[in-house]
Amino acid sequence: MKIFAYGIREDEEPSLKKWEQANPDVEVGFTNNTLTADSARMAEGSDGVVTLQTSDYTREALEVLHNLGIKYISIRNVGFDNFNFQDLNDFGFTLTNVPVYSPNAIAEHAVLLMGRLLRRTPEFAQKIEDGNFTWAPTIGKEYREQTVGVIGTGHIGRVTMQILKGFGCKIVAYDVYHNPEIEKQGLYVDTLEELYKQADIITLHVPLFDSNKHMINDKAIEQMKDGVYIINCARGELIDTDALIKGLDSGKVAGAGLDVIDNENSVFGKKWSSIDNIPNEKIRNLAKRLNVIVTPHSAFYTETAIHNMITTSFDSNKSLIEGLKPDNIVNTNK
Amino acid sequence: MKIFAYGIREDEEPSLKKWEQANPDVEVGFTNNTLTADSARMAEGSDGVVTLQTSDYTREALEVLHNLGIKYISIRNVGFDNFNFQDLNDFGFTLTNVPVYSPNAIAEHAVLLMGRLLRRTPEFAQKIEDGNFTWAPTIGKEYREQTVGVIGTGHIGRVTMQILKGFGCKIVAYDVYHNPEIEKQGLYVDTLEELYKQADIITLHVPLFDSNKHMINDKAIEQMKDGVYIINCARGELIDTDALIKGLDSGKVAGAGLDVIDNENSVFGKKWSSIDNIPNEKIRNLAKRLNVIVTPHSAFYTETAIHNMITTSFDSNKSLIEGLKPDNIVNTNK
Ligand SMILES: NC(=O)c1ccc[n+]([C@@H]2O[C@H](COP(=O)([O-])OP(=O)(O)OC[C@H]3O[C@@H](n4cnc5c(N)ncnc54)[C@H](O)[C@@H]3O)[C@@H](O)[C@H]2O)c1
Ligand SMILES: NC(=O)c1ccc[n+]([C@@H]2O[C@H](COP(=O)([O-])OP(=O)(O)OC[C@H]3O[C@@H](n4cnc5c(N)ncnc54)[C@H](O)[C@@H]3O)[C@@H](O)[C@H]2O)c1
Repeated sequence: MKIFAYGIREDEEPSLKKWEQANPDVEVGFTNNTLTADSARMAEGSDGVVTLQTSDYTREALEVLHNLGIKYISIRNVGFDNFNFQDLNDFGFTLTNVPVYSPNAIAEHAVLLMGRLLRRTPEFAQKIEDGNFTWAPTIGKEYREQTVGVIGTGHIGRVTMQILKGFGCKIVAYDVYHNPEIEKQGLYVDTLEELYKQADIITLHVPLFDSNKHMINDKAIEQMKDGVYIINCARGELIDTDALIKGLDSGKVAGAGLDVIDNENSVFGKKWSSIDNIPNEKIRNLAKRLNVIVTPHSAFYTETAIHNMITTSFDSNKSLIEGLKPDNIVNTNK
Repeated sequence: MKIFAYGIREDEEPSLKKWEQANPDVEVGFTNNTLTADSARMAEGSDGVVTLQTSDYTREALEVLHNLGIKYISIRNVGFDNFNFQDLNDFGFTLTNVPVYSPNAIAEHAVLLMGRLLRRTPEFAQKIEDGNFTWAPTIGKEYREQTVGVIGTGHIGRVTMQILKGFGCKIVAYDVYHNPEIEKQGLYVDTLEELYKQADIITLHVPLFDSNKHMINDKAIEQMKDGVYIINCARGELIDTDALIKGLDSGKVAGAGLDVIDNENSVFGKKWSSIDNIPNEKIRNLAKRLNVIVTPHSAFYTETAIHNMITTSFDSNKSLIEGLKPDNIVNTNK
């Protein structure tokens, strides 16, 4: 049995080697190239393909894989929007994803962003760099005094709540679906308005739909407490960036921690000559503020998450080759 | 009844006003000056004095207060090493301190330093500033995968453990005195060597004595895991800075979070023209590393802590004036 993997980064190699050792019956080949019509030929002789990329998968690339007799594709991430399902079905591919690789990676990042804002760490870092070793007047706030509003109580939201409980935060939660355990703890409020009214910090952990695009807009921010902190480690489009900037300008919003930003693809994932030269004025505006922390969609990027992405995708691909039906098949073909 | 307060900073005024409102029977006067022979005269007509300063209290200043008929001094912090107890006794002063103002302020700061090191936030901040919005290869680690060694399970150490439990960390603890609750949880190891052997992160929460000065030295670091992280929010002299720098140079120590550093008084609390011009080569060496986070003894500096320092010191001073004996009297005179 042979599996060929595309887009393998250096940080993935240790986990890949471990999987190989644990599965001596599988021959593993890999490249750091993405899957294109050209690179697809490298999979010759393989039974399945493991891949990860942020650009679209072309019909031509899939056709080459099909002609090589390959039937199984396993992506190492959650999102499969880079595939055209018509193409997958035309060539008879079965596709698996990794639906959950580490909620903790994102939850811990979100909680860390809160603390960095509460303790004003960008200001302190700046002071130290400037040779200013005084603490006053850069006074901080404590987690335990905060009421945190968690929007979305799925995998990530629930781990976030668990961590915040350890800090002694008060928690209010909102979700269209009520998790029974959180319900039992009496943490749900019935409306977003109620959450906005109570929360000192608001953290987003919902998927993006047409219905909640720009849910954090002028009107929502108006309903929030003065001096609210907003954390977004979910999807950039949940926040209307103009409204957020307006809120920061007026002081209504005391700070923001953003791992995702609307239209981030124009900037994230790339190197620019300096922060002043990035081609998105709003992201530049946000990233230069001392009360805003921008991270480049890196919340997921931990050793544990990478290990799980490799392990689950290879396990799934192997299962498919063995004729089994893993429960993370995402196309309806099989 | 009148209380006069010295060294009041702007960030203390809101809490002071609150205390005043809650105690209409007490007239409150204050200055931002420290207590000197000159400024002591400002307390004329007062029954007690509340104070806070990092320099020594002079016999002359105390003599002026004594001649004004003042008998009660309440400091807003823990440490009373700036007083000469002979002077206090000669003039018949009773002194109170604030033994505990917010263990959470320091515990939260320590845990935050861990996360900032694990997620390599100084490197990410640098990347963003340089216009580099890629995440690879700056991979992070998760709290939940770490074994944290907590040295000292007093007020601060115990809150630290509570927070780390929320993250799902494994915890090992060491203390010369075993807290019954932590004992019940089976978290103590018998020797520091055992803690060094197990811990991925080591955090110090013990007081400084002659016996533990430079407890983190070459020998201790040698006994630690490769790639250990060291956090110090207790006292700078607990760590031999040369040994720490050597450990960082060799890679044995992956990172350090330091709110206190041996000989910090030469640098902390002051403004220099730049980090390159501070008069302590070792602190400069540490502060310039991307895997070391230096904060200027600011772990305690939260709104809650300041509020508690004001409230407890004024409450104690008022009690003394009323002839009561608060349990935070620190000199044996009364
Ligand atoms: N920053 C990153 O690196 C990163 C990585 C992974 C996931 N994410 C984001 O985090 C989100 C949450 O992930 P998860 O694994 O917890 O998902 P999940 O499916 O386990 O949970 C999502 C929760 O949101 C709720 N929900 C859906 N629509 C809602 C709405 N309009 N209002 C309120 N609640 C709503 C659902 O009922 C569910 O409980 C993902 O959708 C994704 O956008 C970000
Ligand atoms: N960075 C800051 O701003 C800041 C603020 C307050 C306190 N601190 C420091 O934090 C330390 C801890 O504060 P706390 O309120 O938790 O004190 P605490 O007295 O409640 O606890 C100290 C603990 O250390 C233990 N201990 C004493 N000597 C020891 C040794 N040699 N080895 C192991 N354990 C030992 C004691 O048994 C006790 O359990 C203080 O001593 C102070 O140095 C720092």
